[in-house]
Amino acid sequence: MGLILLSGTAGRSLAATLPAPETVAGQLRDAAMAGHDIAWNWVSELTTRFGPRPAGSANEQQAAEWAAARMKALGFENVHIESFPITGWARGTESAQLIAPNVQPLVIAALGESPPTPAAGLEGDVVVFPTLAALKAAAPGSLTGKVAMVAQRTVRAQDGAGYGAAVGARVDGPHEAAARGAIAFLLRSIGTDSHRIAHTGTTRYVNGRVPIPAFALSAPDADQIERIAALGQAVRVRLFSSASYAPGAHSQNVIGEVRGRERPQEVVLLGAHLDSWDQGTGAIDDGAGTAIITAAAKLIRDLPHRPRRTVRVVLFGSEEVGQPEPPGSAFGGHAYATNHQAELASHVLAGESDFGADRVYELALPKAVGESEFARQAQRVLTPIGVLLSSRSPEDVGTDVGPSVEAGVPGFQLNQDGMRYFDIHHTPDDTLDKIDRTQLDQNVAAWAALAWLAADSDVDFRTRAAAPAAAPRS
Amino acid sequence: MGLILLSGTAGRSLAATLPAPETVAGQLRDAAMAGHDIAWNWVSELTTRFGPRPAGSANEQQAAEWAAARMKALGFENVHIESFPITGWARGTESAQLIAPNVQPLVIAALGESPPTPAAGLEGDVVVFPTLAALKAAAPGSLTGKVAMVAQRTVRAQDGAGYGAAVGARVDGPHEAAARGAIAFLLRSIGTDSHRIAHTGTTRYVNGRVPIPAFALSAPDADQIERIAALGQAVRVRLFSSASYAPGAHSQNVIGEVRGRERPQEVVLLGAHLDSWDQGTGAIDDGAGTAIITAAAKLIRDLPHRPRRTVRVVLFGSEEVGQPEPPGSAFGGHAYATNHQAELASHVLAGESDFGADRVYELALPKAVGESEFARQAQRVLTPIGVLLSSRSPEDVGTDVGPSVEAGVPGFQLNQDGMRYFDIHHTPDDTLDKIDRTQLDQNVAAWAALAWLAADSDVDFRTRAAAPAAAPRS
Repeated sequence: MGLILLSGTAGRSLAATLPAPETVAGQLRDAAMAGHDIAWNWVSELTTRFGPRPAGSANEQQAAEWAAARMKALGFENVHIESFPITGWARGTESAQLIAPNVQPLVIAALGESPPTPAAGLEGDVVVFPTLAALKAAAPGSLTGKVAMVAQRTVRAQDGAGYGAAVGARVDGPHEAAARGAIAFLLRSIGTDSHRIAHTGTTRYVNGRVPIPAFALSAPDADQIERIAALGQAVRVRLFSSASYAPGAHSQNVIGEVRGRERPQEVVLLGAHLDSWDQGTGAIDDGAGTAIITAAAKLIRDLPHRPRRTVRVVLFGSEEVGQPEPPGSAFGGHAYATNHQAELASHVLAGESDFGADRVYELALPKAVGESEFARQAQRVLTPIGVLLSSRSPEDVGTDVGPSVEAGVPGFQLNQDGMRYFDIHHTPDDTLDKIDRTQLDQNVAAWAALAWLAADSDVDFRTRAAAPAAAPRS
Repeated sequence: MGLILLSGTAGRSLAATLPAPETVAGQLRDAAMAGHDIAWNWVSELTTRFGPRPAGSANEQQAAEWAAARMKALGFENVHIESFPITGWARGTESAQLIAPNVQPLVIAALGESPPTPAAGLEGDVVVFPTLAALKAAAPGSLTGKVAMVAQRTVRAQDGAGYGAAVGARVDGPHEAAARGAIAFLLRSIGTDSHRIAHTGTTRYVNGRVPIPAFALSAPDADQIERIAALGQAVRVRLFSSASYAPGAHSQNVIGEVRGRERPQEVVLLGAHLDSWDQGTGAIDDGAGTAIITAAAKLIRDLPHRPRRTVRVVLFGSEEVGQPEPPGSAFGGHAYATNHQAELASHVLAGESDFGADRVYELALPKAVGESEFARQAQRVLTPIGVLLSSRSPEDVGTDVGPSVEAGVPGFQLNQDGMRYFDIHHTPDDTLDKIDRTQLDQNVAAWAALAWLAADSDVDFRTRAAAPAAAPRS
């Protein structure tokens, strides 16, 4: 009594029998929202089996091999690993105490790529600056023999703007302090929590090195030092770090594809990073991202028909650490852009999932398609799961795809709710329990739908207005 | 045009001119709720100036000297310090790693009074038990050379019942594991948070000692070990602790009073403890309690007239650690009950504030007065600030006043909301920022009002029904 719908019926063209891209995008969205195990299982196994995955470590390499094997098992094509050299960095052991006005333990974390202290540690009186600007206003030589501390706070904001406003203290504080004679640098963690956990992160190289040992303090420890100083008491600290560098290490990008059925050379690039900081297990940064994009591509892979273009998943290595100057260089992202330079002109769109697992609330599309039918189509598909269309075009698409975007690949953003991201980011607390499985699924839904729409279209995201969406064909 | 009300007008008896006790209690309550600086400044200075205050430490002793000086400055009478001998315990350094199936750092904290590992550390395969009962069901010798782990979870509950249900794993896990051959013991922290912080606490002495090194794991680390084991992989750990004992140390109780105007020998005892665990700064456990009872007594002190009975504030030492067997002995509490044995018969009521700084929601009074006018009076005064009258009489009044209560002193409880207490309890996260100043003030209000009502009455809380409250006298 019912109609029997067949794909690819003999005698009719394939296209004529396929459901409309928007229909398929809605199906992908709904399938992800219904709750898939793919993303959760991925991030659970990745973080459980390998724990922390610092760039250049055995854990990172084993995780990459596991990811490649798992992508093959999931049915991805052209799965392979691309290695590249890095200088690794290992935290070693570290400790800190107040030693005056009395003895109190401090919770710290060396900033990434910070040099060790002398083997006996170092001691110094602390000079507290409320902001980086105040430190920069200090006279040359005024910090000789001192430990400089910047106590700037990070504002909680949905889009992470508070991090952007505060992180300069981490990036530029150490070398600015060193230039004024400081022997070490302390930073109120760039983070929004108030737990005894410190937020690490990289800082700027000057003349090829981080000039002095530099540490983040947990927020309560920074509070404590500020309060003691406010009582008029001199604050003296003892610091120790056995951090070390590992020249000649390597990291790797893991690549897999869902090949396009019509124009496989045209690539929609989905990126995230496999490496992590060393104190947590890299669940929100960025195990979640690798799970989201892999699960999204897997949903596309399992459709009855392929998209017209290729969906390429790149799980980058060495996003967090391993880079020489300039700081902010992403070795994995650079290695990809270099290795694939000849292909970048046919990369039609690129996005990166690297902001945890909380829900996507906003889509930002390249300016060229901001007002197009493609944008309206994406909006129709994503609005039901709470995603707004941004009126702004993407600004910072991400560290991993950054070098490709700089080389001309159009970038998009699926912006996630960052209200609690900087509670956890770059801390020991970045563990699996912080991931909300329902919100993780919503991310997969958004990525699967958007990647499909882009890959099954012929839209030129670089310059042209979008072609009108095809009318439903069945 | 108005009436001029004078207290102590010549020619009238003092009592005839005093406002009713219930009126004064309401004034104390309202003054505290309006926001006083006393409690906040106390806990802020205590935790800032001295940081962690482990029993027997220089920090604890200095804090006691500061507290005594501050109590004198606040106008308390009979302020003095009573020292007593203890065996101290110091954490030293400690570390833990998974070493199989791969290397991952673990966040641990040695249980209080746990012995050190050998200097080279120790290694063992982990045997995970879901509960203490499962460990106790293991055969003798079945854990030889192993590291036993109990993964029992702590339920969040307003009255702290989840802690009571879980803490047996900490108290009895180590010696039960040792009795079966285990070389070390790991515990999922007795706590309700999911941060990379471990909850310490004491464990049972058997034959005069804690038999094996015993550690709490943070909840995410316990999760991780359980997940790895669930993947079918053997879990091996390396553990190190340089914990040490300090025989011949001493701790001290700090005592101060607001002397009663009519029957000063009758004492309403308010207790809290000055010592703290070593990883945090003892803000909620129990700097807050010392602030609450001191501020409450100070408000009473500053009234135009004294209560009929004495309000005695005791800031106990060595509540957390320092005790030999039996575990749970509180040296400060025992020292007080011993030193003041002859006075205990005239201690009319005792209470202890040792559950953080979140709001009081319930008053539990001794059975003798449960249905009395005293109870109704207290209810009328405390209901406006959200305190219910419990239908149950006090069960566990507290560790510090426990020995006095066991000796016959009637106990009361001002029960606090414990929903987040065990997120923080016995961790590095026990710092000032966790205290909500408004709720701290509500505690002061409840303690000031209740202490006043008890001290300005002639109620016998031991056996008699309460005397009817005096009618308003002015």
